[in-house]
Amino acid sequence: MGLIFHERVGLDGRRISPFSWRVRYALAHKGLDPQVIQTRFADVGRIRQLSGQDLVPIIQDDGQVVHDSWSIARHLDDRFPDRQSLFGDTIGRGAARLVNIWTDTVLGRMMRRQIYTDFIWCIDPGDRAYFRRSREAQLGLTLEEYGSERDKTLPELLEACAPLERTLSEQPFLAGEAPAYVDYIVFSVFQWARIGSPRDVLPETAKMGATRDWRGRMVSLYGELGNRFPGYPTTECTYR
Amino acid sequence: MGLIFHERVGLDGRRISPFSWRVRYALAHKGLDPQVIQTRFADVGRIRQLSGQDLVPIIQDDGQVVHDSWSIARHLDDRFPDRQSLFGDTIGRGAARLVNIWTDTVLGRMMRRQIYTDFIWCIDPGDRAYFRRSREAQLGLTLEEYGSERDKTLPELLEACAPLERTLSEQPFLAGEAPAYVDYIVFSVFQWARIGSPRDVLPETAKMGATRDWRGRMVSLYGELGNRFPGYPTTECTYR
Repeated sequence: MGLIFHERVGLDGRRISPFSWRVRYALAHKGLDPQVIQTRFADVGRIRQLSGQDLVPIIQDDGQVVHDSWSIARHLDDRFPDRQSLFGDTIGRGAARLVNIWTDTVLGRMMRRQIYTDFIWCIDPGDRAYFRRSREAQLGLTLEEYGSERDKTLPELLEACAPLERTLSEQPFLAGEAPAYVDYIVFSVFQWARIGSPRDVLPETAKMGATRDWRGRMVSLYGELGNRFPGYPTTECTYR
Repeated sequence: MGLIFHERVGLDGRRISPFSWRVRYALAHKGLDPQVIQTRFADVGRIRQLSGQDLVPIIQDDGQVVHDSWSIARHLDDRFPDRQSLFGDTIGRGAARLVNIWTDTVLGRMMRRQIYTDFIWCIDPGDRAYFRRSREAQLGLTLEEYGSERDKTLPELLEACAPLERTLSEQPFLAGEAPAYVDYIVFSVFQWARIGSPRDVLPETAKMGATRDWRGRMVSLYGELGNRFPGYPTTECTYR
Protein backbone atom coordinates (compact mmCIF):
# COMPACT_ATOMS: atom_id res chain seq x y z
CA MET A 1 0.00 0.00 0.00
CA GLY A 2 1.53 3.28 -1.06
CA LEU A 3 -0.02 5.50 1.61
CA ILE A 4 2.04 8.36 3.03
CA PHE A 5 0.83 10.70 5.79
CA HIS A 6 2.50 14.09 6.13
CA GLU A 7 1.73 14.96 9.74
CA ARG A 8 2.43 18.16 11.66
CA VAL A 9 4.85 17.68 14.54
CA GLY A 10 6.18 19.96 17.23
CA LEU A 11 8.77 19.69 19.96
CA ASP A 12 10.34 16.23 20.12
CA GLY A 13 7.75 14.58 17.92
CA ARG A 14 4.71 15.98 19.69
CA ARG A 15 1.57 15.83 17.57
CA ILE A 16 0.31 19.38 17.79
CA SER A 17 -2.28 19.75 15.03
CA PRO A 18 -5.98 19.04 15.54
CA PHE A 19 -6.32 18.47 11.80
CA SER A 20 -3.56 15.90 11.78
CA TRP A 21 -5.20 14.22 14.80
CA ARG A 22 -8.42 13.83 12.82
CA VAL A 23 -6.54 12.06 10.09
CA ARG A 24 -4.60 9.92 12.57
CA TYR A 25 -7.84 8.70 14.16
CA ALA A 26 -9.45 8.25 10.75
CA LEU A 27 -6.53 6.08 9.64
CA ALA A 28 -6.78 3.99 12.82
CA HIS A 29 -10.56 3.67 12.35
CA LYS A 30 -10.00 2.26 8.89
CA GLY A 31 -7.13 0.06 9.99
CA LEU A 32 -4.61 1.83 7.78
CA ASP A 33 -0.98 2.20 8.77
CA PRO A 34 0.73 4.60 6.37
CA GLN A 35 4.30 5.77 6.28
CA VAL A 36 4.42 8.95 8.37
CA ILE A 37 6.51 11.93 7.34
CA GLN A 38 6.93 14.29 10.27
CA THR A 39 6.39 17.82 9.09
CA ARG A 40 7.44 21.02 10.81
CA PHE A 41 6.33 24.50 9.83
CA ALA A 42 9.84 24.92 8.43
CA ASP A 43 9.12 22.15 5.92
CA VAL A 44 6.68 24.33 4.03
CA GLY A 45 8.83 24.23 0.90
CA ARG A 46 8.43 20.47 0.57
CA ILE A 47 4.70 20.73 1.29
CA ARG A 48 4.18 23.47 -1.26
CA GLN A 49 6.05 21.60 -3.92
CA LEU A 50 4.06 18.47 -3.21
CA SER A 51 0.59 19.94 -2.93
CA GLY A 52 0.57 23.50 -4.23
CA GLN A 53 -0.44 24.84 -0.81
CA ASP A 54 1.19 25.22 2.61
CA LEU A 55 -0.79 23.12 5.05
CA VAL A 56 -0.68 19.63 6.44
CA PRO A 57 -2.16 17.06 6.91
CA ILE A 58 -1.58 15.62 3.47
CA ILE A 59 -2.11 12.09 2.28
CA GLN A 60 -0.25 10.69 -0.70
CA ASP A 61 -2.01 7.68 -2.03
CA ASP A 62 -0.25 5.97 -4.93
CA GLY A 63 0.68 9.29 -6.45
CA GLN A 64 -2.56 11.08 -5.65
CA VAL A 65 -2.02 14.01 -3.27
CA VAL A 66 -4.93 14.97 -1.00
CA HIS A 67 -4.75 17.87 1.43
CA ASP A 68 -7.22 19.22 4.00
CA SER A 69 -8.45 16.89 6.74
CA TRP A 70 -12.04 16.85 5.47
CA SER A 71 -10.97 15.95 1.94
CA ILE A 72 -8.64 13.30 3.32
CA ALA A 73 -11.40 11.69 5.38
CA ARG A 74 -13.68 11.59 2.36
CA HIS A 75 -10.89 10.20 0.24
CA LEU A 76 -10.14 7.43 2.75
CA ASP A 77 -13.80 6.43 2.99
CA ASP A 78 -14.23 6.37 -0.77
CA ARG A 79 -10.93 4.66 -1.47
CA PHE A 80 -11.36 1.93 1.15
CA PRO A 81 -15.11 1.26 1.12
CA ASP A 82 -14.75 -2.27 2.46
CA ARG A 83 -13.23 -1.04 5.71
CA GLN A 84 -15.30 0.35 8.56
CA SER A 85 -16.94 3.56 7.37
CA LEU A 86 -16.00 6.94 8.80
CA PHE A 87 -19.31 8.57 7.90
CA GLY A 88 -21.86 5.84 7.46
CA ASP A 89 -23.85 6.72 4.38
CA THR A 90 -24.33 9.98 2.48
CA ILE A 91 -26.63 11.45 5.16
CA GLY A 92 -24.00 10.85 7.82
CA ARG A 93 -21.38 12.48 5.64
CA GLY A 94 -23.57 15.51 5.04
CA ALA A 95 -24.26 15.99 8.74
CA ALA A 96 -20.58 15.44 9.57
CA ARG A 97 -19.72 18.39 7.35
CA LEU A 98 -21.91 20.63 9.50
CA VAL A 99 -20.26 19.27 12.64
CA ASN A 100 -16.84 19.86 11.06
CA ILE A 101 -17.58 23.48 10.22
CA TRP A 102 -19.17 24.13 13.62
CA THR A 103 -16.12 22.60 15.29
CA ASP A 104 -13.65 24.73 13.36
CA THR A 105 -15.52 28.02 13.51
CA VAL A 106 -17.04 27.88 17.00
CA LEU A 107 -15.27 25.31 19.16
CA GLY A 108 -11.80 25.66 17.64
CA ARG A 109 -11.85 29.42 17.77
CA MET A 110 -12.83 29.43 21.44
CA MET A 111 -10.33 26.74 22.28
CA ARG A 112 -7.53 28.67 20.63
CA ARG A 113 -7.90 31.47 23.12
CA GLN A 114 -7.72 28.98 25.98
CA ILE A 115 -4.46 27.41 24.90
CA TYR A 116 -2.42 29.75 22.69
CA THR A 117 -0.29 31.29 25.43
CA ASP A 118 0.91 27.83 26.42
CA PHE A 119 0.89 26.30 22.97
CA ILE A 120 4.05 27.96 21.71
CA TRP A 121 6.08 25.71 24.04
CA CYS A 122 4.90 22.55 22.27
CA ILE A 123 6.22 23.77 18.99
CA ASP A 124 9.66 22.87 17.71
CA PRO A 125 12.08 25.61 18.82
CA GLY A 126 13.00 26.25 15.21
CA ASP A 127 9.36 26.90 14.33
CA ARG A 128 8.52 29.18 17.25
CA ALA A 129 9.53 32.49 15.75
CA TYR A 130 7.47 31.79 12.63
CA PHE A 131 4.51 30.63 14.68
CA ARG A 132 4.57 33.64 16.96
CA ARG A 133 5.00 36.10 14.10
CA SER A 134 2.25 34.64 11.91
CA ARG A 135 -0.29 34.14 14.71
CA GLU A 136 0.30 37.50 16.32
CA ALA A 137 -0.16 39.19 12.95
CA GLN A 138 -3.42 37.29 12.52
CA LEU A 139 -4.68 38.11 16.01
CA GLY A 140 -3.37 41.67 16.21
CA LEU A 141 -2.21 40.77 19.74
CA THR A 142 0.70 38.97 21.32
CA LEU A 143 -0.02 35.37 22.23
CA GLU A 144 0.20 36.39 25.88
CA GLU A 145 -2.26 39.25 25.46
CA TYR A 146 -4.61 36.99 23.58
CA GLY A 147 -4.51 34.34 26.28
CA SER A 148 -4.85 36.76 29.17
CA GLU A 149 -8.63 36.63 28.79
CA ARG A 150 -8.80 32.87 28.94
CA ASP A 151 -10.29 32.52 32.40
CA LYS A 152 -12.86 35.15 31.63
CA THR A 153 -13.80 33.49 28.33
CA LEU A 154 -13.79 29.87 29.52
CA PRO A 155 -17.53 30.04 30.34
CA GLU A 156 -18.22 30.89 26.67
CA LEU A 157 -16.37 27.79 25.58
CA LEU A 158 -18.26 25.66 28.08
CA GLU A 159 -21.57 27.13 26.95
CA ALA A 160 -20.70 26.33 23.34
CA CYS A 161 -19.98 22.77 24.50
CA ALA A 162 -23.40 22.37 26.12
CA PRO A 163 -24.85 20.51 23.10
CA LEU A 164 -21.93 18.08 23.29
CA GLU A 165 -22.52 17.51 26.97
CA ARG A 166 -26.21 16.82 26.50
CA THR A 167 -25.66 14.55 23.51
CA LEU A 168 -22.94 12.59 25.31
CA SER A 169 -25.11 12.17 28.37
CA GLU A 170 -27.54 10.30 26.11
CA GLN A 171 -25.15 8.25 23.96
CA PRO A 172 -21.53 7.15 24.42
CA PHE A 173 -20.23 8.72 21.21
CA LEU A 174 -21.32 11.56 18.96
CA ALA A 175 -21.83 8.97 16.24
CA GLY A 176 -24.02 6.90 18.57
CA GLU A 177 -22.94 3.58 20.04
CA ALA A 178 -19.51 3.55 18.41
CA PRO A 179 -17.07 6.30 17.44
CA ALA A 180 -16.83 7.64 13.90
CA TYR A 181 -15.49 10.67 12.12
CA VAL A 182 -17.79 13.16 13.88
CA ASP A 183 -16.14 12.07 17.12
CA TYR A 184 -12.66 12.48 15.66
CA ILE A 185 -13.50 15.98 14.46
CA VAL A 186 -14.68 17.24 17.83
CA PHE A 187 -12.17 15.27 19.87
CA SER A 188 -9.28 16.67 17.83
CA VAL A 189 -9.92 20.09 19.34
CA PHE A 190 -9.88 18.73 22.89
CA GLN A 191 -6.80 16.70 22.06
CA TRP A 192 -5.13 19.86 20.74
CA ALA A 193 -5.85 21.42 24.13
CA ARG A 194 -4.55 18.36 26.00
CA ILE A 195 -1.27 18.49 24.11
CA GLY A 196 -1.15 22.27 23.91
CA SER A 197 -1.72 23.39 27.47
CA PRO A 198 -1.31 22.00 30.98
CA ARG A 199 -4.59 23.61 32.04
CA ASP A 200 -7.66 21.40 31.64
CA VAL A 201 -10.43 23.26 29.83
CA LEU A 202 -12.93 20.82 31.30
CA PRO A 203 -12.21 21.08 35.02
CA GLU A 204 -14.24 18.88 37.36
CA THR A 205 -16.07 21.97 38.53
CA ALA A 206 -17.39 22.67 35.04
CA LYS A 207 -20.17 20.06 35.17
CA MET A 208 -19.06 18.61 31.86
CA GLY A 209 -18.81 15.07 33.13
CA ALA A 210 -20.21 13.35 30.06
CA THR A 211 -17.83 15.24 27.79
CA ARG A 212 -14.89 14.50 30.09
CA ASP A 213 -15.76 10.80 30.13
CA TRP A 214 -16.11 10.76 26.35
CA ARG A 215 -12.77 12.53 26.01
CA GLY A 216 -11.23 9.79 28.11
CA ARG A 217 -12.82 7.09 25.96
CA MET A 218 -11.52 8.84 22.86
CA VAL A 219 -7.98 8.96 24.24
CA SER A 220 -8.18 5.22 24.93
CA LEU A 221 -9.29 4.16 21.45
CA TYR A 222 -6.94 2.21 19.19
CA GLY A 223 -4.54 1.25 21.96
CA GLU A 224 -4.43 4.59 23.80
CA LEU A 225 -3.85 6.46 20.57
CA GLY A 226 -4.43 9.77 22.32
CA ASN A 227 -1.44 9.11 24.59
CA ARG A 228 0.91 7.60 22.04
CA PHE A 229 3.03 10.75 21.73
CA PRO A 230 4.47 13.11 24.35
CA GLY A 231 2.08 15.43 26.11
CA TYR A 232 2.54 18.99 27.23
CA PRO A 233 6.19 19.79 28.07
CA THR A 234 5.42 21.08 31.53
CA THR A 235 9.00 21.31 32.67
CA GLU A 236 9.86 23.75 29.96
CA CYS A 237 7.51 26.60 30.56
CA THR A 238 6.03 28.49 33.41
CA TYR A 239 2.30 28.23 33.71
CA ARG A 240 -0.15 28.92 36.46
CA MET B 1 -52.46 2.01 8.60
CA GLY B 2 -53.42 3.10 12.09
CA LEU B 3 -51.22 6.19 12.29
CA ILE B 4 -52.53 9.27 14.10
CA PHE B 5 -50.60 12.55 14.39
CA HIS B 6 -51.55 14.94 17.18
CA GLU B 7 -50.26 18.24 15.83
CA ARG B 8 -50.10 21.65 17.47
CA VAL B 9 -52.28 24.24 15.74
CA GLY B 10 -52.85 27.92 16.29
CA LEU B 11 -55.15 30.53 14.83
CA ASP B 12 -57.34 29.14 12.01
CA GLY B 13 -55.35 25.94 11.62
CA ARG B 14 -51.93 27.56 11.46
CA ARG B 15 -49.10 25.13 12.20
CA ILE B 16 -47.16 26.95 14.89
CA SER B 17 -44.86 24.36 16.45
CA PRO B 18 -41.33 23.69 15.19
CA PHE B 19 -41.50 20.24 16.76
CA SER B 20 -44.70 19.40 14.91
CA TRP B 21 -43.11 20.69 11.70
CA ARG B 22 -40.24 18.23 12.15
CA VAL B 23 -42.72 15.40 12.37
CA ARG B 24 -44.75 16.69 9.43
CA TYR B 25 -41.65 16.74 7.22
CA ALA B 26 -40.53 13.37 8.56
CA LEU B 27 -43.91 11.85 7.68
CA ALA B 28 -43.74 13.34 4.17
CA HIS B 29 -40.16 12.07 3.78
CA LYS B 30 -41.35 8.57 4.58
CA GLY B 31 -44.47 8.87 2.44
CA LEU B 32 -46.80 8.45 5.40
CA ASP B 33 -50.17 10.17 5.52
CA PRO B 34 -51.61 9.80 9.01
CA GLN B 35 -54.88 11.01 10.40
CA VAL B 36 -54.18 14.45 11.90
CA ILE B 37 -55.76 15.58 15.14
CA GLN B 38 -55.40 19.33 15.51
CA THR B 39 -54.31 20.11 19.02
CA ARG B 40 -54.55 23.42 20.83
CA PHE B 41 -52.90 24.26 24.13
CA ALA B 42 -56.40 23.99 25.61
CA ASP B 43 -56.49 20.31 24.64
CA VAL B 44 -53.88 19.43 27.25
CA GLY B 45 -56.34 17.21 29.12
CA ARG B 46 -56.69 14.87 26.14
CA ILE B 47 -52.93 14.86 25.56
CA ARG B 48 -52.15 14.12 29.19
CA GLN B 49 -54.64 11.29 29.31
CA LEU B 50 -53.22 9.84 26.10
CA SER B 51 -49.50 10.17 26.83
CA GLY B 52 -48.93 10.99 30.49
CA GLN B 53 -47.35 14.33 29.60
CA ASP B 54 -48.50 17.67 28.18
CA LEU B 55 -46.70 18.20 24.89
CA VAL B 56 -47.34 17.53 21.25
CA PRO B 57 -46.35 16.26 18.72
CA ILE B 58 -47.55 12.77 19.49
CA ILE B 59 -47.84 9.82 17.16
CA GLN B 60 -50.24 6.98 17.85
CA ASP B 61 -49.24 3.93 15.91
CA ASP B 62 -51.60 0.97 16.28
CA GLY B 63 -52.03 1.64 19.96
CA GLN B 64 -48.44 2.65 20.67
CA VAL B 65 -48.15 6.25 21.82
CA VAL B 66 -44.88 8.08 21.07
CA HIS B 67 -44.24 11.66 22.15
CA ASP B 68 -41.31 14.03 21.60
CA SER B 69 -40.26 14.80 18.02
CA TRP B 70 -36.91 13.05 18.31
CA SER B 71 -38.49 9.87 19.64
CA ILE B 72 -41.13 10.05 16.92
CA ALA B 73 -38.53 10.37 14.16
CA ARG B 74 -36.63 7.38 15.53
CA HIS B 75 -39.87 5.42 15.83
CA LEU B 76 -40.85 6.17 12.23
CA ASP B 77 -37.45 5.15 10.88
CA ASP B 78 -37.44 1.92 12.87
CA ARG B 79 -41.07 1.08 12.17
CA PHE B 80 -40.89 1.73 8.44
CA PRO B 81 -37.36 0.63 7.51
CA ASP B 82 -38.27 -0.05 3.88
CA ARG B 83 -39.18 3.56 3.26
CA GLN B 84 -36.58 6.25 2.63
CA SER B 85 -34.49 6.64 5.77
CA LEU B 86 -34.60 9.80 7.87
CA PHE B 87 -31.15 9.27 9.37
CA GLY B 88 -29.25 6.97 7.10
CA ASP B 89 -27.45 4.51 9.31
CA THR B 90 -26.55 4.57 12.99
CA ILE B 91 -23.75 7.12 12.49
CA GLY B 92 -26.16 9.51 10.81
CA ARG B 93 -28.61 9.06 13.64
CA GLY B 94 -25.96 9.75 16.26
CA ALA B 95 -24.80 12.92 14.53
CA ALA B 96 -28.41 14.04 14.01
CA ARG B 97 -28.90 13.92 17.76
CA LEU B 98 -26.11 16.47 18.20
CA VAL B 99 -27.66 18.67 15.50
CA ASN B 100 -31.04 18.33 17.21
CA ILE B 101 -29.71 19.41 20.59
CA TRP B 102 -27.68 22.26 19.09
CA THR B 103 -30.78 23.42 17.21
CA ASP B 104 -32.97 23.43 20.29
CA THR B 105 -30.51 24.93 22.73
CA VAL B 106 -28.69 27.44 20.53
CA LEU B 107 -30.67 28.22 17.40
CA GLY B 108 -34.16 27.81 18.89
CA ARG B 109 -33.37 29.90 21.94
CA MET B 110 -32.02 32.74 19.81
CA MET B 111 -34.90 32.52 17.36
CA ARG B 112 -37.44 32.71 20.18
CA ARG B 113 -36.26 36.17 21.07
CA GLN B 114 -36.63 37.25 17.45
CA ILE B 115 -40.24 36.16 17.09
CA TYR B 116 -42.01 35.96 20.46
CA THR B 117 -43.50 39.45 20.44
CA ASP B 118 -45.24 38.66 17.15
CA PHE B 119 -45.85 35.01 17.80
CA ILE B 120 -48.78 35.45 20.20
CA TRP B 121 -50.94 36.56 17.25
CA CYS B 122 -50.57 33.21 15.49
CA ILE B 123 -51.98 31.41 18.47
CA ASP B 124 -55.64 30.54 18.76
CA PRO B 125 -57.37 33.38 20.67
CA GLY B 126 -58.52 30.92 23.31
CA ASP B 127 -54.93 29.82 23.95
CA ARG B 128 -53.35 33.27 24.12
CA ALA B 129 -53.89 34.00 27.81
CA TYR B 130 -52.32 30.65 28.74
CA PHE B 131 -49.44 31.16 26.33
CA ARG B 132 -48.68 34.64 27.57
CA ARG B 133 -48.93 33.66 31.23
CA SER B 134 -46.76 30.55 30.96
CA ARG B 135 -44.08 32.09 28.72
CA GLU B 136 -43.84 35.33 30.65
CA ALA B 137 -43.43 33.36 33.88
CA GLN B 138 -40.65 31.35 32.22
CA LEU B 139 -38.90 34.44 30.84
CA GLY B 140 -39.45 36.75 33.78
CA LEU B 141 -40.40 39.41 31.21
CA THR B 142 -43.43 40.33 29.15
CA LEU B 143 -43.32 39.01 25.58
CA GLU B 144 -42.95 42.61 24.43
CA GLU B 145 -40.05 43.32 26.78
CA TYR B 146 -38.38 40.09 25.70
CA GLY B 147 -38.72 40.96 22.03
CA SER B 148 -37.61 44.56 22.41
CA GLU B 149 -33.97 43.44 22.12
CA ARG B 150 -34.52 41.54 18.91
CA ASP B 151 -32.77 43.92 16.55
CA LYS B 152 -29.85 44.18 18.89
CA THR B 153 -29.59 40.40 19.25
CA LEU B 154 -30.16 39.47 15.59
CA PRO B 155 -26.39 39.50 14.90
CA GLU B 156 -25.94 36.80 17.56
CA LEU B 157 -28.45 34.61 15.78
CA LEU B 158 -26.75 35.19 12.45
CA GLU B 159 -23.37 34.40 13.95
CA ALA B 160 -24.75 31.17 15.37
CA CYS B 161 -26.01 30.36 11.86
CA ALA B 162 -22.59 30.85 10.28
CA PRO B 163 -21.84 27.09 10.25
CA LEU B 164 -25.14 26.51 8.45
CA GLU B 165 -24.30 29.15 5.88
CA ARG B 166 -20.87 27.69 5.20
CA THR B 167 -22.17 24.12 5.02
CA LEU B 168 -25.01 25.09 2.69
CA SER B 169 -22.64 26.99 0.42
CA GLU B 170 -20.88 23.66 -0.14
CA GLN B 171 -23.81 21.26 -0.38
CA PRO B 172 -27.52 21.76 -1.16
CA PHE B 173 -28.83 20.19 2.04
CA LEU B 174 -27.44 19.63 5.52
CA ALA B 175 -27.75 15.91 4.84
CA GLY B 176 -25.76 16.31 1.61
CA GLU B 177 -27.31 15.99 -1.85
CA ALA B 178 -30.83 15.28 -0.62
CA PRO B 179 -32.77 16.39 2.45
CA ALA B 180 -33.13 14.22 5.54
CA TYR B 181 -34.02 14.61 9.18
CA VAL B 182 -31.11 16.94 10.02
CA ASP B 183 -32.60 19.36 7.50
CA TYR B 184 -36.08 19.04 9.00
CA ILE B 185 -34.71 19.74 12.48
CA VAL B 186 -32.95 22.96 11.54
CA PHE B 187 -35.58 24.09 9.03
CA SER B 188 -38.33 23.70 11.63
CA VAL B 189 -36.88 26.63 13.56
CA PHE B 190 -36.81 28.85 10.46
CA GLN B 191 -40.31 27.69 9.56
CA TRP B 192 -41.45 28.59 13.08
CA ALA B 193 -40.09 32.07 12.43
CA ARG B 194 -41.77 32.28 9.00
CA ILE B 195 -45.14 31.40 10.49
CA GLY B 196 -44.56 33.25 13.73
CA SER B 197 -43.40 36.69 12.65
CA PRO B 198 -43.71 38.91 9.57
CA ARG B 199 -40.10 40.00 9.99
CA ASP B 200 -37.55 37.93 8.07
CA VAL B 201 -34.69 36.89 10.32
CA LEU B 202 -32.56 36.32 7.21
CA PRO B 203 -32.81 39.67 5.46
CA GLU B 204 -31.02 40.06 2.13
CA THR B 205 -28.52 42.31 3.84
CA ALA B 206 -27.44 39.54 6.21
CA LYS B 207 -25.23 37.71 3.69
CA MET B 208 -26.95 34.44 4.44
CA GLY B 209 -27.75 33.66 0.83
CA ALA B 210 -27.02 29.94 0.96
CA THR B 211 -29.22 29.54 4.03
CA ARG B 212 -32.00 31.61 2.46
CA ASP B 213 -31.87 29.52 -0.71
CA TRP B 214 -31.93 26.31 1.31
CA ARG B 215 -34.87 27.59 3.32
CA GLY B 216 -36.69 28.19 0.03
CA ARG B 217 -35.88 24.66 -1.16
CA MET B 218 -37.12 23.28 2.14
CA VAL B 219 -40.42 25.17 1.84
CA SER B 220 -40.87 23.73 -1.66
CA LEU B 221 -40.36 20.08 -0.72
CA TYR B 222 -43.27 17.66 -0.85
CA GLY B 223 -45.51 19.88 -2.93
CA GLU B 224 -44.76 23.19 -1.16
CA LEU B 225 -45.31 21.62 2.23
CA GLY B 226 -43.94 24.72 3.95
CA ASN B 227 -46.74 26.81 2.46
CA ARG B 228 -49.59 24.35 2.86
CA PHE B 229 -51.08 26.18 5.86
CA PRO B 230 -51.77 29.87 6.49
CA GLY B 231 -48.80 32.10 7.20
CA TYR B 232 -48.44 34.97 9.58
CA PRO B 233 -51.78 36.77 10.16
CA THR B 234 -50.46 40.18 9.22
CA THR B 235 -53.80 41.89 9.13
CA GLU B 236 -54.47 41.11 12.72
CA CYS B 237 -51.54 42.69 14.48
CA THR B 238 -49.47 45.78 14.23
CA TYR B 239 -45.85 45.19 13.38
CA ARG B 240 -43.09 47.35 12.12
